[in-house]
Amino acid sequence: MQLALEEAAKAAAAGEVPVGAVVVHDGRVIAASGNVTRDPPDPTGHAEVRALRDAARHLGQERLSECDLYVTLEPCAMCAGAIAHARIGRLYYAASDPKSGGVEHGARVFEHAQAHHKPEVYAGMGADEASAILRDFFAARR
Amino acid sequence: MQLALEEAAKAAAAGEVPVGAVVVHDGRVIAASGNVTRDPPDPTGHAEVRALRDAARHLGQERLSECDLYVTLEPCAMCAGAIAHARIGRLYYAASDPKSGGVEHGARVFEHAQAHHKPEVYAGMGADEASAILRDFFAARR
Repeated sequence: MQLALEEAAKAAAAGEVPVGAVVVHDGRVIAASGNVTRDPPDPTGHAEVRALRDAARHLGQERLSECDLYVTLEPCAMCAGAIAHARIGRLYYAASDPKSGGVEHGARVFEHAQAHHKPEVYAGMGADEASAILRDFFAARR
Repeated sequence: MQLALEEAAKAAAAGEVPVGAVVVHDGRVIAASGNVTRDPPDPTGHAEVRALRDAARHLGQERLSECDLYVTLEPCAMCAGAIAHARIGRLYYAASDPKSGGVEHGARVFEHAQAHHKPEVYAGMGADEASAILRDFFAARR
């Protein structure tokens, strides 16, 4: 999770919403990314989507059943759907996101049969630091 | 929608689940894609995500408020989330997808405040042809 927080901090420095994600396979980091939605412009460029895509390319397979995903913020519906498609084994996220989350809020993507896969979900690890990075980012832009 | 159906047929020929998507801006097609999840492996490589990403790059902006999306199948939760992030104006989809859909089924992504944007949604145009392409694809693989 520390590495995901570093990715979030890098995203903030680049003017992107500071969220970071890391994919771990067999105890090794195989993909890490922050949000990149502005440069280049990509409405799908959330940290989770980018990290999952890189991990799939790295392993040469679409399914990441043996992988864990660490992300600094509760995934939105798009990212939760991507996590289900990737068959991620364990999802660890730091801060909850009542405003935009899709795991424990809103669409609750994993709670519907249409998701086809539900990872083990662990929330809260590193939440204070993840929230602080987001709060500082939005405070500085106001 | 005819062009989206052609993208779906091309995906089938490549061994990919036959779904196609097209983004239209000012009456012009600016992006078109089928599913590409196997080669290269990408759990996020649904036609909608790919077309939205290409459209954003084409227009040089993350938000596609002036764009319409045509897709041959009801978007899943991941794609519905991507459509909300992209601020797509109108979503047209052909066949409904009770098994994996996230618009009128399951997560119903646009029905939650966490989506932040809800496009106008029109369903059914080209549904018979879209369903036939999918049915033939899966029948041939059994």
